[in-house]
Amino acid sequence: MQTVVQKFGGTSVGDAEKLRQSAGHAVRARGAGRRVILVVSAMGDSTDDLLGLADTLGDIGHDKREMDQLLATGEQVSCAMMAMTLRGLGVPAVSLTGLQAGIKTDHVHGRASIREVGGDRVEQLLGQGVVPVVCGFQGVTEEGDVTTLGRGGSDTTAVALAARFKGECEIYKDVDGVFTADPRLVPEARLRPVVFYEEMLEAASLGSQVIHPRAVELARKFDVPVRVLHSQRAGDGQRGTVVLSEEGSMEARVVSSVVLKGGVGRISLRGVQNAAGVQAKVFSPIAAAHIPVDDIIQEDDGPGTINLTFTLDKKDLPEVNAILQGVAPLVGAQSLRADGGFSTVSAVGAGMRSSSGVAAMMFAALAQEKILVENITTSEIRISVVVREGDGQRAVRCVHRAFGLHSSEGEAQAAALLRGELGEV
Amino acid sequence: MQTVVQKFGGTSVGDAEKLRQSAGHAVRARGAGRRVILVVSAMGDSTDDLLGLADTLGDIGHDKREMDQLLATGEQVSCAMMAMTLRGLGVPAVSLTGLQAGIKTDHVHGRASIREVGGDRVEQLLGQGVVPVVCGFQGVTEEGDVTTLGRGGSDTTAVALAARFKGECEIYKDVDGVFTADPRLVPEARLRPVVFYEEMLEAASLGSQVIHPRAVELARKFDVPVRVLHSQRAGDGQRGTVVLSEEGSMEARVVSSVVLKGGVGRISLRGVQNAAGVQAKVFSPIAAAHIPVDDIIQEDDGPGTINLTFTLDKKDLPEVNAILQGVAPLVGAQSLRADGGFSTVSAVGAGMRSSSGVAAMMFAALAQEKILVENITTSEIRISVVVREGDGQRAVRCVHRAFGLHSSEGEAQAAALLRGELGEV
Repeated sequence: MQTVVQKFGGTSVGDAEKLRQSAGHAVRARGAGRRVILVVSAMGDSTDDLLGLADTLGDIGHDKREMDQLLATGEQVSCAMMAMTLRGLGVPAVSLTGLQAGIKTDHVHGRASIREVGGDRVEQLLGQGVVPVVCGFQGVTEEGDVTTLGRGGSDTTAVALAARFKGECEIYKDVDGVFTADPRLVPEARLRPVVFYEEMLEAASLGSQVIHPRAVELARKFDVPVRVLHSQRAGDGQRGTVVLSEEGSMEARVVSSVVLKGGVGRISLRGVQNAAGVQAKVFSPIAAAHIPVDDIIQEDDGPGTINLTFTLDKKDLPEVNAILQGVAPLVGAQSLRADGGFSTVSAVGAGMRSSSGVAAMMFAALAQEKILVENITTSEIRISVVVREGDGQRAVRCVHRAFGLHSSEGEAQAAALLRGELGEV
Repeated sequence: MQTVVQKFGGTSVGDAEKLRQSAGHAVRARGAGRRVILVVSAMGDSTDDLLGLADTLGDIGHDKREMDQLLATGEQVSCAMMAMTLRGLGVPAVSLTGLQAGIKTDHVHGRASIREVGGDRVEQLLGQGVVPVVCGFQGVTEEGDVTTLGRGGSDTTAVALAARFKGECEIYKDVDGVFTADPRLVPEARLRPVVFYEEMLEAASLGSQVIHPRAVELARKFDVPVRVLHSQRAGDGQRGTVVLSEEGSMEARVVSSVVLKGGVGRISLRGVQNAAGVQAKVFSPIAAAHIPVDDIIQEDDGPGTINLTFTLDKKDLPEVNAILQGVAPLVGAQSLRADGGFSTVSAVGAGMRSSSGVAAMMFAALAQEKILVENITTSEIRISVVVREGDGQRAVRCVHRAFGLHSSEGEAQAAALLRGELGEV
């Protein structure tokens, strides 16, 4: 019998009515003869409420081990509520904490990694025709201490269970699936029936949080088919988006999505004396302060000197600026400049690998809109440009249209254009 | 090294400030060289909040297994908060759920009984000089399902841990200890330095909820010394009340407390044909409806007929009346009467066993105040009278004074009076 793991986020279980609608998906899957495991996040704002409670303790709060013990209650509540909802719909169901479900992790409280899914109790319940409702986001160490998995934790729990039980994973959200761009920004954005793990990884790390990169990575590793669906729509009609491996797919879409990320800051160190280890001198103290840095660009700036430019979250600018004020003299930098007010616009697509001209097509679209490109970075399946924040929305729209993502005809035209350029090379 | 289990109820951990005050008791005990285990109830109204959340599911909520999984989060939150508070005060502390602490119970969800206290983790932490902060009110079945212990559960957890670790148990409340009467009703009520298990059992079952009878019963069984203290007062000055076994005690107080219980209903079946099994016919259907009945009085009412009178919670009157409407003809009852509006006033004391005249002294006091006594029941260490609800407060005050509980001189006088009567008999 086929197993499906259905994961519901906080907004999908926010109240009794949403619980019922979400539970309906499990009822239908069960009716279709599938074995169903649910993974549930904490209801609505309850995690924030628990964080607020810890804040009342002032500085003394936030011990990591105890914060995990505290936060894990959020999912325990939502899972019990979901199990009762399912029972109310005539489906036998039992809620399980991470510990009870055998989600074993390392000891890194607050952002633990799953080491193993025991799952004996889950297996036993499935054998009895009962739906296990598993707390997402949490696990337990060898010693029996509760851990939480950090951001994207519930998605990761769901994929790990799907891997353990050789099943599919359905991620239920308050969106219809993965789109070519954020429909709130680009009204003509279209739902993608299929995306590849690699594309999801790039898009997710750029701020398009449909599924957390950790969960996507895990799904790729264990070849778990993932489907993104809308929790508040009846199941049978909707197709959602399937996330799967590129291998064996006929489709080789050049660009599959365009992602806008706002609130970007940029720091430039100019005229740095290039010597072995200067990069480490610059970035080690930033890493030590646990501040994530995005794309790094290094370019020559005359004989023996370089410019180092990188982007980061705007809110981290003051702290990083303060750190680099101390570092700049040590690397002989002639100037240090920190600016906020940027966005990045990225085109992502697995087909980009085998198609040149994609960058040119993107730059042409931006030029036609007279949008100034401040920086460029690329990976194997992604091209990102830094633009002024005010240009962000126009940029994502024009790039989306340039790659023909608004319609299948448009897409065919863009593909033909790219093939033509390929021929000219 | 001596071990002490300190138990804090919901109001004693209701916010950050109360958590700090309560934690102070643990800090002091530790400073005095004792090994400390804490047992904590859910913060303030959080259990009611969780019950309210389940209510939003309507009729479908309240599956017993899932309700336990839900309610257990209340203590998990408060224990994590307490552990962080202690760490903030420089005391290493680790919170433990019932499962983590090895509190093993039977399978009766909602009112489980503790079968065994594993406590390996507790022992290990104590050995490391760490304070284990254990979730009260909860345990786990053999299969790993979370259970709750029902009313008085946290007191029971505390006593069970004290029994397991051969320590003392301190129950912290928002009162100074056990009084001769409720000080809100009887301003001259005095704190008792010592009460006996048996007296606590009688007083608790009469509505004086200082420690739950289950916990007292357990303390008696394992001979655990229990002390009742005020959570919001600094520890060293206060003596509180010690609850201990009568054996080996020099004190043999005749009456140690007077308890008022309001909201009492009364039902009388008159002229019942007395035959084998009539009592069962009357009380079995009430028990089947899970309605607790208090004192039962049976008296003759002429040849071959009896009157059956019993007291119960006023709120249960309509349901029991409906049940007995059906039963009355079957037992040949000539009349059925249900009345609300009563109180019981009880004098409790272990010394009553060896002292006659106590009842007479109580009746004399009530007579002097012209308070009509509606019914009388007695046990080995208790005399209870049913009075009109409006007379309740006056009754408890005059009985309290009659037994000299307002001062040590008064007590000596009453004792002398009783000895005198004893001589006359």
